[in-house]
Amino acid sequence: MTGKFIVIEGLEGAGKSTAIKQVAKVLAEHGIDSPELTREPGGTPLAEQMRKLVKEGHPDEPLTDMAELLLLYAARIQLVDNVIKPALDSGRWVVGDRHDMSSQAYQGGGRGFDKALMENLRDTVLGDFRPDFTLYMDIDPVLGLERARGRGELDRIEQMNIDFFHRARARFLELAENDPSVAIIDASQSLEDVTADITRALQSWLEQN
Amino acid sequence: MTGKFIVIEGLEGAGKSTAIKQVAKVLAEHGIDSPELTREPGGTPLAEQMRKLVKEGHPDEPLTDMAELLLLYAARIQLVDNVIKPALDSGRWVVGDRHDMSSQAYQGGGRGFDKALMENLRDTVLGDFRPDFTLYMDIDPVLGLERARGRGELDRIEQMNIDFFHRARARFLELAENDPSVAIIDASQSLEDVTADITRALQSWLEQN
Repeated sequence: MTGKFIVIEGLEGAGKSTAIKQVAKVLAEHGIDSPELTREPGGTPLAEQMRKLVKEGHPDEPLTDMAELLLLYAARIQLVDNVIKPALDSGRWVVGDRHDMSSQAYQGGGRGFDKALMENLRDTVLGDFRPDFTLYMDIDPVLGLERARGRGELDRIEQMNIDFFHRARARFLELAENDPSVAIIDASQSLEDVTADITRALQSWLEQN
Repeated sequence: MTGKFIVIEGLEGAGKSTAIKQVAKVLAEHGIDSPELTREPGGTPLAEQMRKLVKEGHPDEPLTDMAELLLLYAARIQLVDNVIKPALDSGRWVVGDRHDMSSQAYQGGGRGFDKALMENLRDTVLGDFRPDFTLYMDIDPVLGLERARGRGELDRIEQMNIDFFHRARARFLELAENDPSVAIIDASQSLEDVTADITRALQSWLEQN
């Protein structure tokens, strides 16, 4: 038995961390204990160094959009090959805080790299590796950023135009609506309702798989 | 007037550093002073950090071939966008110690990534940006590695199988023979003959361009 790869996606402030805890709880109730928890970009020693380059850049040199994209994929393949696939092969489940959909949304939708390029790069790097199930936490970026700002997490991201996040959300939604392995959760609801929706979506998927 | 981009390519021990000095000398004799000198991977603050990840890896984690390839291209686009193109646009000439041909040879030929993938990635990242002129310093890897070993430069590279370098050389030669903007220099000759061949090839190109 190989494990399954479940991913939580969404904009800043969409409640991904809370969702991950709820996913782990529901999995435990189904007898699936101690899933491997990953985050992207990062999650391995080398991928974390690549994450640092993406997050911090360099004071004397702009990180080009293309280099950012390539670094994100370099970090992703390190994580997939060295952590996610070995875990799945050994029968462990993996719960990921972001995966490829974030690149499609932020770099594709947000930065404006065209869809063919994004899909081609994904297929070149990842082959046919995909999450088994994705919970996309949907939120209006104005509300999401307000929540994230309340936690003081926005230093670099706040510098970006709100339009960037609107474009990212539009791409997230477009991908989610066209992919049967993605459940859309309305993350603007109360914590109680969000938690109930996550539980319902995950249980429904678990029963069918 | 925009500048021109001249690249020196070849295996370890092929004499690239000596070739670069000779190229700079010949250019100076033609009134082209102080070209921008670049090296790949690296040549900008961020690209040098990417180079470090490629060269050193991490003691606890293998760098996958795909991540290596993506890091090399991330470093390349940083150098092209932030150094090479601005220099050329301002009228300066650029002399590069390695460029894309090295990736085609080492990652394509050596590591075995297929040609379509390599060409597609190059076009995706670089568009139609190419060197104006390339001197490929051809040498048998056994001789090249022997020379490089004599300089104590081979720590990480020595660990690779000699077959890797034979495959890289074969790809270098194949590319060079099919590209009219590349001159092949027999780097196994005496320093005097190599220098004379470089001078002749570069002068011939300068007169035609």
